[in-house]
Amino acid sequence: MFTGNLSARGQNYLLREAQAADLEQIIALMADDEIRRAEYAGAGDEGEHYLEAFNEIDADPAHTLIVVEGNDGTIVGTMQLTTLPGLARRGAKRMQIEAVRVASGLRGGGLGTEMIRWAIAEAENKKISLIQLTSDAQRLDAHRFYEGLGFTASHVGFKMRIAISP
Amino acid sequence: MFTGNLSARGQNYLLREAQAADLEQIIALMADDEIRRAEYAGAGDEGEHYLEAFNEIDADPAHTLIVVEGNDGTIVGTMQLTTLPGLARRGAKRMQIEAVRVASGLRGGGLGTEMIRWAIAEAENKKISLIQLTSDAQRLDAHRFYEGLGFTASHVGFKMRIAISP
Repeated sequence: MFTGNLSARGQNYLLREAQAADLEQIIALMADDEIRRAEYAGAGDEGEHYLEAFNEIDADPAHTLIVVEGNDGTIVGTMQLTTLPGLARRGAKRMQIEAVRVASGLRGGGLGTEMIRWAIAEAENKKISLIQLTSDAQRLDAHRFYEGLGFTASHVGFKMRIAISP
Repeated sequence: MFTGNLSARGQNYLLREAQAADLEQIIALMADDEIRRAEYAGAGDEGEHYLEAFNEIDADPAHTLIVVEGNDGTIVGTMQLTTLPGLARRGAKRMQIEAVRVASGLRGGGLGTEMIRWAIAEAENKKISLIQLTSDAQRLDAHRFYEGLGFTASHVGFKMRIAISP
């Protein structure tokens, strides 16, 4: 999985694997979200946690952290793809998509659509026959977005937070 | 991740990592499901697909295929756990649970509860702060089961099937 060229509203973007040097911009993008913002409060002090997480993603080819950059090199989109092997559906591989974000000024302009279409093409290349993701039940715009791309809201997504000692 | 001892309705069970020799029993267990049964029709001809998928799961320590066996060695439960690194939630690790099955004769008897409790304890041991899974929207009993264990139905699970050339 390497690079791709995306186009939205007449602008061109480069899609590529993230590097450690991108982390600050990626975190800022992930924090720029009305539902998740509180989780990133004070995150400036926690760079080592992010680097450790990045290194784990980077070390296992099952996981790919994607960034999309504009002509000026600013990162304006990110998503994380994981290939999940499994016995279900006759040993079919799944692609799990997590942490999809588009810069607030570009939302609704088609860049997210191009990112997900790229992921779908990547799944086809890798003989992955099911793509899955969950979206917070409050994100009605996101639900329409994924349904418009051909996803079906067939499942309920359950989450449980675990209190861990630091 | 190795073994555990589970108890349900006065019976003891051994929880352990799956081995290739377990595949036939695991597949039979996965196929014994009213919603997914059709996907396994004719699966007897496709042993190599299952073995390939098993080998991929087995090769990456991020994935663990669990089986639960009774005193007579019969496999009566299975689930697949994946550790997902990620930048979200300050670099928190997630545990993704897939393909949870309990033998039909034992459903409702507490074995599934013990399996998920074991997974929760395993998440705590591994400093994983979020457990996630999706359940088909038709499986109302499963939804009550996961809510009873402390999960929140906070998300919508989107899936897209991809037609791949064989």
